[in-house]
Amino acid sequence: MGCSGAMSRTSSAPLLILTVTMVALAVFVSTCGADPEPVQDFCVAVAGAGSDADASPAFPGFPCKPASKVVSDDFFFAGLSRAGSTDNLFGAGLTPGNVIAFPGLNTLGVAINRVDLAPGGVNPLHSHPRAAELVHVITGQMLVGFVSTAGKYYSKVLAEGESFVIPRGLMHFQYNGGTIAARAMTVFDSQLPGVVAAAPSLFGADPEIPDAVLVKSFQVDIEIIKLLKSKFRK
Amino acid sequence: MGCSGAMSRTSSAPLLILTVTMVALAVFVSTCGADPEPVQDFCVAVAGAGSDADASPAFPGFPCKPASKVVSDDFFFAGLSRAGSTDNLFGAGLTPGNVIAFPGLNTLGVAINRVDLAPGGVNPLHSHPRAAELVHVITGQMLVGFVSTAGKYYSKVLAEGESFVIPRGLMHFQYNGGTIAARAMTVFDSQLPGVVAAAPSLFGADPEIPDAVLVKSFQVDIEIIKLLKSKFRK
Amino acid sequence: MGCSGAMSRTSSAPLLILTVTMVALAVFVSTCGADPEPVQDFCVAVAGAGSDADASPAFPGFPCKPASKVVSDDFFFAGLSRAGSTDNLFGAGLTPGNVIAFPGLNTLGVAINRVDLAPGGVNPLHSHPRAAELVHVITGQMLVGFVSTAGKYYSKVLAEGESFVIPRGLMHFQYNGGTIAARAMTVFDSQLPGVVAAAPSLFGADPEIPDAVLVKSFQVDIEIIKLLKSKFRK
Amino acid sequence: MGCSGAMSRTSSAPLLILTVTMVALAVFVSTCGADPEPVQDFCVAVAGAGSDADASPAFPGFPCKPASKVVSDDFFFAGLSRAGSTDNLFGAGLTPGNVIAFPGLNTLGVAINRVDLAPGGVNPLHSHPRAAELVHVITGQMLVGFVSTAGKYYSKVLAEGESFVIPRGLMHFQYNGGTIAARAMTVFDSQLPGVVAAAPSLFGADPEIPDAVLVKSFQVDIEIIKLLKSKFRK
Amino acid sequence: MGCSGAMSRTSSAPLLILTVTMVALAVFVSTCGADPEPVQDFCVAVAGAGSDADASPAFPGFPCKPASKVVSDDFFFAGLSRAGSTDNLFGAGLTPGNVIAFPGLNTLGVAINRVDLAPGGVNPLHSHPRAAELVHVITGQMLVGFVSTAGKYYSKVLAEGESFVIPRGLMHFQYNGGTIAARAMTVFDSQLPGVVAAAPSLFGADPEIPDAVLVKSFQVDIEIIKLLKSKFRK
Amino acid sequence: MGCSGAMSRTSSAPLLILTVTMVALAVFVSTCGADPEPVQDFCVAVAGAGSDADASPAFPGFPCKPASKVVSDDFFFAGLSRAGSTDNLFGAGLTPGNVIAFPGLNTLGVAINRVDLAPGGVNPLHSHPRAAELVHVITGQMLVGFVSTAGKYYSKVLAEGESFVIPRGLMHFQYNGGTIAARAMTVFDSQLPGVVAAAPSLFGADPEIPDAVLVKSFQVDIEIIKLLKSKFRK
Repeated sequence: MGCSGAMSRTSSAPLLILTVTMVALAVFVSTCGADPEPVQDFCVAVAGAGSDADASPAFPGFPCKPASKVVSDDFFFAGLSRAGSTDNLFGAGLTPGNVIAFPGLNTLGVAINRVDLAPGGVNPLHSHPRAAELVHVITGQMLVGFVSTAGKYYSKVLAEGESFVIPRGLMHFQYNGGTIAARAMTVFDSQLPGVVAAAPSLFGADPEIPDAVLVKSFQVDIEIIKLLKSKFRK
Repeated sequence: MGCSGAMSRTSSAPLLILTVTMVALAVFVSTCGADPEPVQDFCVAVAGAGSDADASPAFPGFPCKPASKVVSDDFFFAGLSRAGSTDNLFGAGLTPGNVIAFPGLNTLGVAINRVDLAPGGVNPLHSHPRAAELVHVITGQMLVGFVSTAGKYYSKVLAEGESFVIPRGLMHFQYNGGTIAARAMTVFDSQLPGVVAAAPSLFGADPEIPDAVLVKSFQVDIEIIKLLKSKFRK
Repeated sequence: MGCSGAMSRTSSAPLLILTVTMVALAVFVSTCGADPEPVQDFCVAVAGAGSDADASPAFPGFPCKPASKVVSDDFFFAGLSRAGSTDNLFGAGLTPGNVIAFPGLNTLGVAINRVDLAPGGVNPLHSHPRAAELVHVITGQMLVGFVSTAGKYYSKVLAEGESFVIPRGLMHFQYNGGTIAARAMTVFDSQLPGVVAAAPSLFGADPEIPDAVLVKSFQVDIEIIKLLKSKFRK
Repeated sequence: MGCSGAMSRTSSAPLLILTVTMVALAVFVSTCGADPEPVQDFCVAVAGAGSDADASPAFPGFPCKPASKVVSDDFFFAGLSRAGSTDNLFGAGLTPGNVIAFPGLNTLGVAINRVDLAPGGVNPLHSHPRAAELVHVITGQMLVGFVSTAGKYYSKVLAEGESFVIPRGLMHFQYNGGTIAARAMTVFDSQLPGVVAAAPSLFGADPEIPDAVLVKSFQVDIEIIKLLKSKFRK
Repeated sequence: MGCSGAMSRTSSAPLLILTVTMVALAVFVSTCGADPEPVQDFCVAVAGAGSDADASPAFPGFPCKPASKVVSDDFFFAGLSRAGSTDNLFGAGLTPGNVIAFPGLNTLGVAINRVDLAPGGVNPLHSHPRAAELVHVITGQMLVGFVSTAGKYYSKVLAEGESFVIPRGLMHFQYNGGTIAARAMTVFDSQLPGVVAAAPSLFGADPEIPDAVLVKSFQVDIEIIKLLKSKFRK
Repeated sequence: MGCSGAMSRTSSAPLLILTVTMVALAVFVSTCGADPEPVQDFCVAVAGAGSDADASPAFPGFPCKPASKVVSDDFFFAGLSRAGSTDNLFGAGLTPGNVIAFPGLNTLGVAINRVDLAPGGVNPLHSHPRAAELVHVITGQMLVGFVSTAGKYYSKVLAEGESFVIPRGLMHFQYNGGTIAARAMTVFDSQLPGVVAAAPSLFGADPEIPDAVLVKSFQVDIEIIKLLKSKFRK
C-alpha cells in the first residue's frame, strides 16, 4: 500500500476494480530497501523509464537523463500537495512520491508518500520488503501499528506533529480512529520501497494461490478462503 | 516459517500451543537479509548469545568467541541430519540452520534450513524480510510458489534435485502434493533471514491487531476475523 | 545545520554564543549516510548512549535496549510537534529527530528534522556528509537550493505540500523569502545524517584553521578572514 | 572450482585439455561476493547475456528480461538433478547453479552448486573471491577443510545431512575419503561466487607467471616449477 | 579539489579563468564514496564514457569494455609520474587518478591523486562527499588539517613518508609551509571521490546563490559577499 | 603478504622461522574488503584492541576511543617512513599501515602498506580476500602481475610514479627485476585487507592439509608435496 495513487481516484468503485487497480499499480512499486550507494551526484531517471521496463531488456534501476539536460525542476515534486480522494472502500487516499512518480529521486535512496484517511479509514495491512518507514502526522490523528517477527504488536495513536517508526519488512497499517480527516507523510530509506499488500497478495494473486495451501496456512474451511478470495479476485 | 525447530516436536498438539511455540521461537529468527560485509575471517558467535539478548544491552549481531578458542567444530553443524516431525496440524517439520542454531555462521551471510513435509503438508505462507530463498528438493516433490509485489503468482512443482528461487520479502510457501514424505533444503543470503508468518502475524499478534483494522483490510465481517483470530491467538 | 535543537532556544543571543552552541551540539550530529543493513528487527538505543560516548570506549553506533524491555513508546517521537523558536540571528528554529533525539531509529536508516523559519530566516549553508535530504514544506514557502560538484546551482521556491531533493554531501540551504512563518520536514536516508556547517567549519573551528590557508583558499586579504572568524569564533 | 560443469564431461581426457576447459569456463565464474542490494523484485537475466559479454560494452551484471515476459520457469532450475561425471583426473563432477546457468538468480544474491566426488576424488584447492560457502552433504561423506589467513587449518569429515561453512576468500577443498560416491550441495551468498583455482592460477595462467617469481614464492628449484607448470599449461 | 589536472596547466592565468576550469572539470569528479560491491573481476570503463555521459541516457557508473579486449595496459596508469605545474594562484598542481583518468579503476573502489605544492601553496579547503582520504607525503612537508562535524580542528605537519587520514565528507586542506616543493599521494576508498570545493561552491556557483542567503549564513555585509563572489564568479 | 612488518626484521633467518613469523602475523591481517559504511565521523581504535581479540569475546571490528580523548596524533602514522629490511629469503621488506598498525583508520575503509624490494626480491604470490589493491611505485621499478578467475595473466613493469591496479581476491605479486632497491606504496579499499599467502596457506598450514588432497590438487607425486611442505612447515 502506501504508494498507489489510484486509490484516490476510484471513489465508490466496486472492490473488484479497486483491487485490480491497486495490484496493477503495485508493479511500479516493487522492492528496494537500503539502495546501493550512488556513484554520481545524481541520476535523474529518464521520462517513461517505468513503462519501458516491460518492453525491452534493461539493467536494474533507471537510466539517467544526460547531466547537461538536468534542470532544477527535476529535483522538484508537487504531486503531494493535494489530498488523495478517500471516497473508496478503505476510506484511504494514497499518493506515492517514489522514483516512479518523482524521477529525481533515482539513486538518492529516499522516498515520501502522502496518506489521507477519512474518519474510520485504513491504509490496509502491508509490508515494505526492503525499507523502514517513518510516519509523521500533519493533521488529525492516526493509529499506527506493526507486528514484529516475534509476533509482538507495537502501536500508538499519533496526534499532529508526532512520529512513529516501522522496521523494515514488518506487517503494519495506519488507521484514522478520529472524527476528522487525517493526513500523514510516510518516508522511506529507499527510492522505491515496495509493497506486499497482505490481503491482495494472499487472496487476490493472479493466478490464484491453491485453496489447499490457504486452507492449511489459515486453518479455516475452504468456504472462508473462497469468501476472502471473492473480495480480492481480479 | 522455515525456521522453527519447534514444529517438529509438537505432534498432535493443539493449534493454540503450536502457534505459541512458532511465534515464540520466531524471536530468534528476526530479520537480516543481505548482511553487512564481514571485517574479519570469521566471528563465531559466543554460546548463549541469543538468550542473553533479552537480558542486557548489546550491539546488533553477536559477539565473537576469541579466535584462539575457535576450533573446527565451530564451523560444523549436524542439526539438519534428521527429519523434523511432521505430526502436527501443518504436516510440516521445520529445522533451522541459522546463526542461532549454528553460531559459526555469524558474519558469514548464509543460512540453511531443512523442510520436511508429510503428504499434504505445507510450510505456511510467510515472507523473509531481508533474504532471498533458494529451495532445493532432496526427496519427494514440492509445489513452491510466491506472489510478486505486482500480485502475480509464480509457482512450480519441484522433483528431486530441482530448485526454485524466491525473491526477498515476498509471500511464499512449500506444499507437498505428492504421496510420500518430501524433504528440501532452503538456503538464504543472510545468517538470520527472519520470518513474517502471514496468519500468526495478522491474526495471532500479541496484543491483538484491532478488529476494525482487520475487518477493513480484509473486507469481511467481524465474525470471520474473530474465527481467524481464534485459530492463532496465544 | 538542520539538526540543532539549540537554535530555537538562543533567541537574541550574541552570535558568539549562538555559534558555540551550534557547534557544540553538532558533535551529536556527526556523519552517517546510507547506514549498514540492520541484522535484527530493531535495536532501540539505550538511554544516554549519546552522552556516554565521550566517556568510555564503545563500538560504532549504539547498543540495543534488551528486546524484552522494548515498548511501543520506543518507536514514538513527539519532539517535532512544536515549532522551534526563530528568535535568533538566523531566524531559524531547527529541531532534530535523529537517533540521538529518537533512540528507536537506531539501525533503521531514517531520520527526520523540523525546520521553522521566520520571514527572511535561513537554515545556513551546510552539507550532510552521508545522507541525501528530501525537504517537504508544510506551511508557508521556502527557497531551497544546492550546488553540484560541477558548480551548478539548482533551486526552487516550494509552496505548501511541495518537495525538493538534495543529493548527498552537497552544499545547500533553506530560505524563507515569504511574509509568514514557514515550516518544513526534512527527511534523510540515515539515522544520523551529520552536518558540516559551512561558516562555522571554515571560520569557527577550534583550534582555528591557519589564516594563511584561508587567505589562499578564499583569495581575499587577511582582514576579511579575520572578520569572518570574529563572527564564528568560540 | 566448484563451478565447472566441464569436468563432468571430460572423462579420461588428458590433463592439458581438462585444465584448458576448466580455466576457460572460469571466465563465467568470475567474482561476486555479497552482491549489491536488489532494486526490484527480480531481474531475470536475458538469455545469452553471458556470451554477449565478450562482444560489446555492457554495464556490470546482467540486463533484465522484460517483467511482462517473465514466467514461473524463469525461477526454476533442473540442472542439478543429475550427477556430474567423475571420470576424470580429479574424480570430481562439478555442476554450477550460478547466474550463468540459472538466469533467474540475477540480483538475488544466492547460488548453489552440485559436487559429486568418486571415492578418492577431490574438488581441488580453490577460493571464492567474494562469497562464503556452506557445504551440505546429501549422500556419502566428505572431508571439508579451509585455511584461515592466520595459517590455521580447520576441517571436518561430514556424513549425510551434515554441514560445514567456509569463510569468504579462504583456500578450501572437498575430498571423498569414503568408499562410495559422495554428493554435496554448496551454497553461496552471491549469484556468481567466482573461483580462484590454486594450481591453475599459479601454474597454468596464460601467459605464464615468470619462473623467477614462482621460484622465489615457493622456495623451490626451477625444475619443480616447470614440472608443476607442465601439469596445468594450456 | 584534489582532482583537477587543469590547475597544473593554468600558470599565471587570471583567477577567473582558473576557477572556471576547476569547476568545469569538477563535473567529472562527482561523488562516489564507498562504492557498491563489484559483481565481476573487473569492468574496464570504455573510452570516452565520461564525455558521452552528457550526450545520452546511461545507467550510473560506466559500461565495461568487452573482457576479450581487455589488456594489461588497461590496469596501468602513468598519469601521475610527472608533477603538476604549481604556477598558479594557489601554488598547487593537482593530478587526478580517478576512474575518469584511469578507466581500469571502474568498479574497483579505489582512486589515487597526486598533489604538488610550491612553498606556500595550498590545496584549498574542500570535502569529498563520499570518500575518506589518506594523505601520504613523498617529498617535502605538508600541513594537513580537517574539521570534524563537532567543529574540532585536527592537523599535523607531515614529513616524507608520513601519513594522515581524513574522514569522509569533512572540510580539509593541504598546505606547504616548507621551503621546497612538496609532493603527496592522496588515496580514496572510491573510484571517483567527488569534490565540494568550499569557495567555488559557495561563491562561484552558476547561477549564483542569492546574496541574502550568503549574507545571513556568513553574518557579514553584502559587500564582503560581493567581494568573495568576484573572486570565484565564472 | 603486503602486510607483514616482520619480514623486514628477519634478515638471514631460516625460511622456517621466516614463514612462522609471516603466518603468525597474518592473524592480524585478516579479511576485510569493502568495509561497512561508517556511522560516525571517526572511531579511533583503542590501543591494544588487536591483542585483546584473542582473550575475550568482542563484536567484529574495534571499539572506539572516547571522542573527547581523540587528538590529532590519532590520525597520523609515521610507520612507513623507513624502509623495511630486505635481508631475508624473499628480498622483501613489507611494512603494514592497516588498522592494527594505524588505529585511526578504524571504520574509514582505507589502508596503505609500504613494499621495499631488493633487486631480485619478490612480494610472494598472495591474494587479499576483500580488497582491491592499487600499487604506486615511488623509486626503482617493479613487475606487478595478477591472474584473473579466467586464468588470464595481466602484468606490467612499473617505473617511478606509475600505478597498476589489482582486482579484489585475485592472485598477484610484485617483483623487482631492476638493479636498484625499489619502493612502492600499496593502497586498499579496506582498513584491513587480509592476506591469503599462496605457498604458506597451501603447504604451511597448521595442522597440515592432507597429502592426498594436495597430490590430487597439484597432480604431482607425494615427494614434491613433501618438499614444498618442508619449505613452509612451522
